[in-house]
Amino acid sequence: MSHNTFGHLFRVTTWGESHGPALGCVIDGCPPGLALTPEWIQGFLDKRRPGTSRFVTQRQEADAVKILSGVFEDDRTGGPVTTGTPISLMIENTDQRSKDYSEIRDRYRPGHADFSYDAKYGVRDYRGGGRSSARETAARVAAGAVARCALGGGVTIRGAVVQIGPHAIDRAKWDWDQVGQNPFWCPDKDMAAQWEAFLDATRKAGSSAGAIVEVQASGVPAGWGAPVYGKLDAELAEAMMSINAVKGVEIGAGFAAAAFSGEQNADEMRSGNEGVRFLANNNGGVAGGISTGQDLVVRIAVKPTSSILNEVKSVTREGEDVDVRTKGRHDPCVGIRAVPVAEAMMACVLADAKLRHRGQTGR
Amino acid sequence: MSHNTFGHLFRVTTWGESHGPALGCVIDGCPPGLALTPEWIQGFLDKRRPGTSRFVTQRQEADAVKILSGVFEDDRTGGPVTTGTPISLMIENTDQRSKDYSEIRDRYRPGHADFSYDAKYGVRDYRGGGRSSARETAARVAAGAVARCALGGGVTIRGAVVQIGPHAIDRAKWDWDQVGQNPFWCPDKDMAAQWEAFLDATRKAGSSAGAIVEVQASGVPAGWGAPVYGKLDAELAEAMMSINAVKGVEIGAGFAAAAFSGEQNADEMRSGNEGVRFLANNNGGVAGGISTGQDLVVRIAVKPTSSILNEVKSVTREGEDVDVRTKGRHDPCVGIRAVPVAEAMMACVLADAKLRHRGQTGR
Amino acid sequence: MSHNTFGHLFRVTTWGESHGPALGCVIDGCPPGLALTPEWIQGFLDKRRPGTSRFVTQRQEADAVKILSGVFEDDRTGGPVTTGTPISLMIENTDQRSKDYSEIRDRYRPGHADFSYDAKYGVRDYRGGGRSSARETAARVAAGAVARCALGGGVTIRGAVVQIGPHAIDRAKWDWDQVGQNPFWCPDKDMAAQWEAFLDATRKAGSSAGAIVEVQASGVPAGWGAPVYGKLDAELAEAMMSINAVKGVEIGAGFAAAAFSGEQNADEMRSGNEGVRFLANNNGGVAGGISTGQDLVVRIAVKPTSSILNEVKSVTREGEDVDVRTKGRHDPCVGIRAVPVAEAMMACVLADAKLRHRGQTGR
Amino acid sequence: MSHNTFGHLFRVTTWGESHGPALGCVIDGCPPGLALTPEWIQGFLDKRRPGTSRFVTQRQEADAVKILSGVFEDDRTGGPVTTGTPISLMIENTDQRSKDYSEIRDRYRPGHADFSYDAKYGVRDYRGGGRSSARETAARVAAGAVARCALGGGVTIRGAVVQIGPHAIDRAKWDWDQVGQNPFWCPDKDMAAQWEAFLDATRKAGSSAGAIVEVQASGVPAGWGAPVYGKLDAELAEAMMSINAVKGVEIGAGFAAAAFSGEQNADEMRSGNEGVRFLANNNGGVAGGISTGQDLVVRIAVKPTSSILNEVKSVTREGEDVDVRTKGRHDPCVGIRAVPVAEAMMACVLADAKLRHRGQTGR
Repeated sequence: MSHNTFGHLFRVTTWGESHGPALGCVIDGCPPGLALTPEWIQGFLDKRRPGTSRFVTQRQEADAVKILSGVFEDDRTGGPVTTGTPISLMIENTDQRSKDYSEIRDRYRPGHADFSYDAKYGVRDYRGGGRSSARETAARVAAGAVARCALGGGVTIRGAVVQIGPHAIDRAKWDWDQVGQNPFWCPDKDMAAQWEAFLDATRKAGSSAGAIVEVQASGVPAGWGAPVYGKLDAELAEAMMSINAVKGVEIGAGFAAAAFSGEQNADEMRSGNEGVRFLANNNGGVAGGISTGQDLVVRIAVKPTSSILNEVKSVTREGEDVDVRTKGRHDPCVGIRAVPVAEAMMACVLADAKLRHRGQTGR
Repeated sequence: MSHNTFGHLFRVTTWGESHGPALGCVIDGCPPGLALTPEWIQGFLDKRRPGTSRFVTQRQEADAVKILSGVFEDDRTGGPVTTGTPISLMIENTDQRSKDYSEIRDRYRPGHADFSYDAKYGVRDYRGGGRSSARETAARVAAGAVARCALGGGVTIRGAVVQIGPHAIDRAKWDWDQVGQNPFWCPDKDMAAQWEAFLDATRKAGSSAGAIVEVQASGVPAGWGAPVYGKLDAELAEAMMSINAVKGVEIGAGFAAAAFSGEQNADEMRSGNEGVRFLANNNGGVAGGISTGQDLVVRIAVKPTSSILNEVKSVTREGEDVDVRTKGRHDPCVGIRAVPVAEAMMACVLADAKLRHRGQTGR
Repeated sequence: MSHNTFGHLFRVTTWGESHGPALGCVIDGCPPGLALTPEWIQGFLDKRRPGTSRFVTQRQEADAVKILSGVFEDDRTGGPVTTGTPISLMIENTDQRSKDYSEIRDRYRPGHADFSYDAKYGVRDYRGGGRSSARETAARVAAGAVARCALGGGVTIRGAVVQIGPHAIDRAKWDWDQVGQNPFWCPDKDMAAQWEAFLDATRKAGSSAGAIVEVQASGVPAGWGAPVYGKLDAELAEAMMSINAVKGVEIGAGFAAAAFSGEQNADEMRSGNEGVRFLANNNGGVAGGISTGQDLVVRIAVKPTSSILNEVKSVTREGEDVDVRTKGRHDPCVGIRAVPVAEAMMACVLADAKLRHRGQTGR
Repeated sequence: MSHNTFGHLFRVTTWGESHGPALGCVIDGCPPGLALTPEWIQGFLDKRRPGTSRFVTQRQEADAVKILSGVFEDDRTGGPVTTGTPISLMIENTDQRSKDYSEIRDRYRPGHADFSYDAKYGVRDYRGGGRSSARETAARVAAGAVARCALGGGVTIRGAVVQIGPHAIDRAKWDWDQVGQNPFWCPDKDMAAQWEAFLDATRKAGSSAGAIVEVQASGVPAGWGAPVYGKLDAELAEAMMSINAVKGVEIGAGFAAAAFSGEQNADEMRSGNEGVRFLANNNGGVAGGISTGQDLVVRIAVKPTSSILNEVKSVTREGEDVDVRTKGRHDPCVGIRAVPVAEAMMACVLADAKLRHRGQTGR
């Protein structure tokens, strides 16, 4: 992985700024012969799309994806399939309001990448955060849709928000069917109502809130991933931490495991009808960096949106003190829209792991 | 990063099994002209060495490192310096007691990589966990010592254990001078005494304990790292999660940030004598994947040692139920010896980031 | 380098098919702050553009390049500069005549990639050769223009055709000023006239001709490149051999060196005003994989265009014998248009070598 | 490929200097379950070993290889097999006569890497050329032996010398059985006798000679390799050009193709009993960067050994003119010992291509 490319055999390179003409990605190494339509990709982009509820940014973007290469009509079916050559996807930006940002041209917004980009490059597209904008994640979601094709139907990836601000769900009430029924991807019906009130208050207060997102993958066979630096959990950690605003990643029991005893933490095994049956999943589906066949379970901590209406202390590019209020159309809780992005990153990691496993072992 | 290689310009490839003749690493891309002696590397290996207290494994390994290539006498000083060519380091294994493991040849130890390695490769060196053994981390520590040379004296990396089992330190009592004074790398004198009692009890009970380790780097200039998949925090997350038994990684405020409001989380800035001065460090020294010049702060969750004397349910390779007790000489809390390993991984990530930054920007 | 990506720190990923909606590339790792306009890139594309003389394909393509990301207004100059983020370039295809190719849908053209693509992928965009078309090289030329920015003005790269069919130039008559004065990039005025007659005859005969192209780079400082698998000449060889229709690469004296004695081949040295002065350049500017400061000299053999009007024996996808004549608008000698492409590849290799050298050594 | 690592899924990292304690390589990504013994590797090393005839260096090296990791007893057979983890191979240096080199410590030998290494690194192990010595190729040959395991018995790789100095073999007399019968890997019995006289004269004259080596691989299925930068021929070119003293690479007809017409060059096809039958192999087994199923045919030009007894003009590190005669024990024609090295590089390229092809396509 190198700057703007992710993956080894299933490789995704993204490009584009928030307020440039377009953004997109190139997917190299996708297996040939897989059915792929713009509509399939669009379905995932629509889950991430801004402007769908009052709890996400009001920017209006169609986020319409175009397939520019790598797909051609299949001989037999006549339908579009991947050809094994690079798949170039493009999403044009249509609702940029660059003037919203003119006043932050010369001042660093705390918590944003403004200062660090300037320290690195000495020049940056300040409009909407440029390359550091969460808009870049649209390209990830598009790539993730292709990765799901490479994974095939046997692997199911789905995510949910499990905490907003200090309010965590009750895992005993977890209901996947609820996840699509509220604007928060919340699996706990009661908590969804509570978050609505909490986020309305947060928004009115000109503030923002953090969140914790959980992503699970079922159907991953035992054996994917590889020791010792290509560990499946290490690659998941890298993928997740590369998502904007993510500050923590844990697998299975995660940080809670630190307080466990060896017995509590052991994922005991018994023989089952279809091979080994595990009696617990504290390891979150990975041992020694290789999948065990259990569900992969990853949680990520998303910090509160840095762009807030309330005034915070900062400095200008010239080093003068200034107080900053960030106008514009921001998500009060970026963690919500991180769900389809985290799902997409898991899909990309798994597609790559599948191809590499097949390459090395022939299975 | 690809299977057994870590890094891009400063690249580390490790090899070796727990009970093979030796283990080691090849470091490619180290800048030339840096003073490097076996003694320098040995100093770091000695921090990680087994057998140094009753709280770590009693295996007796000298862990003596040999430099096989990449170092030659300097014209001017006559002392050994790096030449820019690959540095090959080797540590011979001397205290293998492979018979300890003969009985686990055909049974999977829960929480270990036994099952998943078999699922992937169909064959494995079962002695001491083979490649999945924590002995592999000796090679990382050796590589980390070289990485510190590449970083130079301006960057200081140090780590500490901040929680063992359910017992967390009091951060108000943090004293770096204490860290070398107890067998736990504990910065809180009072907690060190408490851990001693706790781990003695754990050991006697035939059990094990988890831990949380914190690593900090100071002196890292603003500008290292790069968006969007080579983010400094993403690479740190990958590096840390690749360490045996690590199940979680967080940067700065980490998971706690999920409960913060936007104001609480903002690292406000004011102009200072030497450029920008930050009023907080919730971001842990990274924004937008690029270092801010603040201290890098990373915490990792280490699960309890999987090898315990107490019986746990498992299966054999042939799929029969069996109860497993793991004899051998194991760390009651692997988190302790993870400290020099986590420091080494941070050194490797930063050395690589430094070289890549210099490559792209000339600074 | 991996499938559709070239380079390590200066990385180019190309995408697109001959008859798809567009083609392009993403350049990752370009240093920030370099002036870059579409006009600069267009100048190089125009050198490669089809339809400029009767000796190249009559396909009419504007090859107009768009910069979609990675460039923004400079604070000081107000002009567009690179920002250090990925530069996405797109060229729309406008003059596809896909029906020309309908009859080769099911038959393999000898010498083309039709058969091997099918063997690999089982599906291919047959229109104009799809991904294997020389149109892909437009993206390389665009990337090469950016690479020249990264190299700066001190490095000059230029190429020429030195042989067409059996007719080689007289090196004693080499005149760089002639190169732009004829449609063949020929440095030998007399030979240009001869080639004109030869290629007219070739074209009328429904045949095609091979060529040898030479590319030189001056101003490359001693020290770029690295042993032993990242050798500058090895990377040049890879880059050049990746160009469509290239079947051979040689550096300096190349194949002729096989017949030399050690004395003949030695590039003797004497001290000069500005350091070492070489008395010959049989090594073509590289020793031990590292540049010597002399001119880099690379020659490539380009086979005759595979698409010819004359009938050749072949088979259909179903395995039936068939005789193939390739209509369409083809270059009678693809070697001519290989000149700007080979220059571009050299620019990309050198830009990458410069950044890596700077990364490892700080110089 | 990056400095000292070659390959993507089948990755070889070599290390070591000519006069250091040892040299070796780490092979990462080798499939598990393949029988591998030191004796197998040794057989290939013995083909390359110095001191076997008066036409190669008289340095006496056993070149005994040790397997340090990655191989373990197989459950079923009890014999040693690869485990899928890194294979570390080491060859100790035993016959270094470093004093031979003390006088070249401060003077650059023309044609050698002395000057360019110094320009890059500012420090170098001058003894025997250090890292730039042809001794490094022992590690390649060892890696190639492992690559042949990964390829399996279906693929046969073999090489021969086809020209020494100005004396080329008669291809009509090509007899593979002759190749092992003379000290030149010469397939033409008559030419072998002629080379013997020529090289004796060359050696007595204190000079050296260049050569051309041809390597062929049969049994490679159609479909390996990939467009457009991972082309099989591009990777072969890179691999071959990375061998010491190689100055040119050609595939199939190579440079001769430049003089061909389109009809001459076309590898016509007819249907055969087992799929497509080619009527010629000017493409050398690759089209569009993908194997066609025909024999792969690669030729490399090896320059004369740079170390010669005759005096050549040079300079010292301090920039003073000096005349250099290189004593020591050198190959009068390094091209001879390049044969097993070139075979090894082809094996590594093909093993990597096989795994990547399997990864992307499942075949």
